[in-house]
Amino acid sequence: MAAINENFLKLQAGYLFPEIARRVKAFKAKNPKADVISMGIGDVTQPLPSAVIDAMHRAVDEMAGAETLKGYGPDHGYDFLIDAVIKNDFNSRSVEIDKDEIFISDGAKCDTGNLQEIFNTHNTVAVTDPVYPVYVDTNVMAGRTGSADDKGQYEKIVYMPCTAENGFIPALPGRKVDLIYLCFPNNPTGAVATKEKLKDWIAYAKENKAVIFFDAAYEAYITDPAIPHSIYEIEGAKEVAIEFRSFSKTAGFTGVRCAFTVVPKQLKAYTKDGRAVDVNPVWHRRHATKFNGASYISQAAAAAVYTEQGKKQIKQIIDLYMKNAELIRTALTKLGYKVYGGINAPYIWLKTPNDFGSWQFFDYLLNQAHVVGTPGAGFGPSGEGYLRLTAFAQPDNVKEAMNRFAKVKI
Amino acid sequence: MAAINENFLKLQAGYLFPEIARRVKAFKAKNPKADVISMGIGDVTQPLPSAVIDAMHRAVDEMAGAETLKGYGPDHGYDFLIDAVIKNDFNSRSVEIDKDEIFISDGAKCDTGNLQEIFNTHNTVAVTDPVYPVYVDTNVMAGRTGSADDKGQYEKIVYMPCTAENGFIPALPGRKVDLIYLCFPNNPTGAVATKEKLKDWIAYAKENKAVIFFDAAYEAYITDPAIPHSIYEIEGAKEVAIEFRSFSKTAGFTGVRCAFTVVPKQLKAYTKDGRAVDVNPVWHRRHATKFNGASYISQAAAAAVYTEQGKKQIKQIIDLYMKNAELIRTALTKLGYKVYGGINAPYIWLKTPNDFGSWQFFDYLLNQAHVVGTPGAGFGPSGEGYLRLTAFAQPDNVKEAMNRFAKVKI
Repeated sequence: MAAINENFLKLQAGYLFPEIARRVKAFKAKNPKADVISMGIGDVTQPLPSAVIDAMHRAVDEMAGAETLKGYGPDHGYDFLIDAVIKNDFNSRSVEIDKDEIFISDGAKCDTGNLQEIFNTHNTVAVTDPVYPVYVDTNVMAGRTGSADDKGQYEKIVYMPCTAENGFIPALPGRKVDLIYLCFPNNPTGAVATKEKLKDWIAYAKENKAVIFFDAAYEAYITDPAIPHSIYEIEGAKEVAIEFRSFSKTAGFTGVRCAFTVVPKQLKAYTKDGRAVDVNPVWHRRHATKFNGASYISQAAAAAVYTEQGKKQIKQIIDLYMKNAELIRTALTKLGYKVYGGINAPYIWLKTPNDFGSWQFFDYLLNQAHVVGTPGAGFGPSGEGYLRLTAFAQPDNVKEAMNRFAKVKI
Repeated sequence: MAAINENFLKLQAGYLFPEIARRVKAFKAKNPKADVISMGIGDVTQPLPSAVIDAMHRAVDEMAGAETLKGYGPDHGYDFLIDAVIKNDFNSRSVEIDKDEIFISDGAKCDTGNLQEIFNTHNTVAVTDPVYPVYVDTNVMAGRTGSADDKGQYEKIVYMPCTAENGFIPALPGRKVDLIYLCFPNNPTGAVATKEKLKDWIAYAKENKAVIFFDAAYEAYITDPAIPHSIYEIEGAKEVAIEFRSFSKTAGFTGVRCAFTVVPKQLKAYTKDGRAVDVNPVWHRRHATKFNGASYISQAAAAAVYTEQGKKQIKQIIDLYMKNAELIRTALTKLGYKVYGGINAPYIWLKTPNDFGSWQFFDYLLNQAHVVGTPGAGFGPSGEGYLRLTAFAQPDNVKEAMNRFAKVKI
C-alpha cells in the first residue's frame, strides 16, 4: 500500500499568495471596472535591461547551431557565470570563494526549500517570526515539526519574534537550535543586520555547532555602505553558514529563473556519533542527483548582469524601485502611518492603523483604495497588525496608490 | 549540533557519468590528438529547430517590454503550454487529462527524483535492474533503504532483473511493493512495454494499492504503432500511475530545461490508519512550495514543439537519430554482436563480446577505437556484460564509430 508522507497533511491550508490571489480575483469579479494596483506579491515590473536581453538572444542563437548547441551543463553551473559571481559578488567585498563552493540553480526558493534535506530530520529549526513561509513549510514536509497550533505555528520549531521593539532583529534563541534561517535584508520587514549582529549569530552557531541558512536574495537593495551584503564578510562565517542569492529581485529574473547558493568547504555537520562531515560534497551529490542545471539561456542572462553595461542598467532599475520605496515611506509617514523598512530593502512594513488586523486592513485597502498589500499575519503571528508593501510597482502606480491612501485615511 | 542526513552517507561513490567523464578526461590527457567519439551520455547533438528558436527569440523580446514582461508564472505552468500538451500528447491518443493534472517543470530528472518525497519513507520501492540511478539514489537519500551490498544494491529495495531471457521486461515482484518505477521506452536497455504488459502492472498496482512512477521521457522514439506512448492509454492507469515526460530527448531541450509530470486526480495514497488521500493536491503543494516554475522562455520554447512547423521539424530530428540507431544495430549485428533496443528507443543495448565486463569493454573501446559508450554495469548488476550506446551522435560520427568497431573487432 502506497502510504502518503503524513507530514504534508500537517501543512496549514493556503500558502499566503494563493489566498491573496483568491481575494483579489473575487473582488475583481464583483468590481470589473476597478483599477487594482498590486503592491502585494514581490514580483518585478521593470523589463529586463538590454544587456540581459541581448545575451539571451545570443544564447538562443547558439542553440540553433550544432557547433554551439549547449546540452546538459556542468553540475555546479557554467564557469563563465561562476567566475563572474565570485569576482563581482565576493572578491569585490574582499571575500574569497572557491568555484566548487558555488552552485548555480533555478531559484532561491528551490534552494532554501531543498537545502534542509541534507540534514537530519531530528535537527531543531529556528526561524524568525514573521518568516518567509517556504522555510517553515519545507521543514514541516520533512518531518522536523509537530502539528500547527491555532496561531499557525508548528510544534518543535523555535520561532524568534521580530518586533518594532527589537528593531525586527531577533534575539539569539534561549535554547539550543541546530538549523537557523536568517534573511537579510529581510522579507517581509525590510530590516537589515549589522556586522555586529551577524557576529553574534556566527558566535552562537560556532558554540552550538549550528548551521545558518543565510538568505541574501535582497542584498542588491542595500544602500547603507556599513551593512554587509554577504554573511561571509564576517570572519568565521564560512565555518557555519550557507548563503542563498538570487537574480530574481536583483535583476528581474522572476520569470527567467536563475540563482545560486554558496556552500563553503569549511562547513561541517555531524553524524549521530559526533563525527564531522563536510557539507559541500553532500550538497553537491544532492544537487547533481535531483537537478539538471538552470537553463543555459538563463545562465547566459545572469552572466550579462555582471558586465559593465549590465551593472549600470541593473543599478538604474534598483534605483527606480528604491525611489518607489522612498516615496511610499515618505507619503505614508506624512499620513501618520508608522512605517519600517524600505531603506535597504524593497519592502515596506507598515503598521496597520486603528488596531486593524492584517487581513482586515488588507480587505479594507482592497475595497476602499483598490490597492493590494500582503497581510503581515501571513508571515507569522508577529506580523499581525502589519501590512507588507513592495516597491516593485510602476512609479505611476505607486504615486496613484499613495493618493488613494491619502483619500481613504482612517 | 547540526546533524547530517546520514542516508546520504550510504550512497555509493561516483554517479556513473562523472566516472565516465573522469576516464575520458584521463585518456584525452594521455592522447591529446585522439578523436574521441561520444556515444555515452544521452545528450542531444542536433541544434534546436527553427520553430523553437523563433519562439525563444519572441519570448526574450517579451521580457524587454514592461507590458509583456513575464514574472512569476502560474504554479502548474502556463496554460498555453498545458493546453498544447493535453491536446497533442493525450487527446490525440484518446486520453482525457485535466489541466490541473499537469505540472510543468524544469526536468524529468528533478520530477522523478522529487516525487517520492510526498510518500512515506517506510514504503517499499521496486526498481528494475538495470535502472536509471536517480530513482534509486533519491530513495536512498530519503531513507527508504539500508546500506548497499557489494554489488551496489541497497537493502530494502526490490530489484527486478531485466535480462535477455525476459526480453528486458521485468516480472511482477514476488512480494508486495508500494512504489514502482518503470521506464518505457527503457533507459538503458531500449526495451518497450506492450499494452498487455502494462495492463499486468496496473492490475498489480490496483491489487496492492501501489503507485507506479512511469517514466515516458523517450516516448517520442516509439516507431511501432502498437506500443503505447502513455500509460494512460491503458484503462485504470489514472488510479495508480504518475507519468513523467520531458522535452529533453523529444525536442533537444537538455540545455533549455522543460518537462512535465501528470498526477491524475483519481490517484490515492493512504495514511497509516488506512484513510485514502488524494495525491494531486499534495504534489501541488510540494511543487508550489519548493519550485518557482520553469523559465518562461523554456515554456514558450516547449509550446513551439507542438506547432505544425515544430512537429514537422522535431520529427526530422528524431528520424535522424533513429537512422543512427538503425545504422548501429545493423553494423554491429553484421560484426557478430548481440544487439538489443534501438527500434523504439534511442538506446542500443550491446552484449559485450568474449565475456568482457562492462567497464573492461568500455576501457577497451575507449583505448582501441576512441569510442565512448556507457558501461551497463553502471545501471545495476544485470547490466554487467552490456554496454549502452546512444543514437544521439552526429551521423558522420556514428558511421566513423562503426568503422572503428569493425577494425577492433575482438
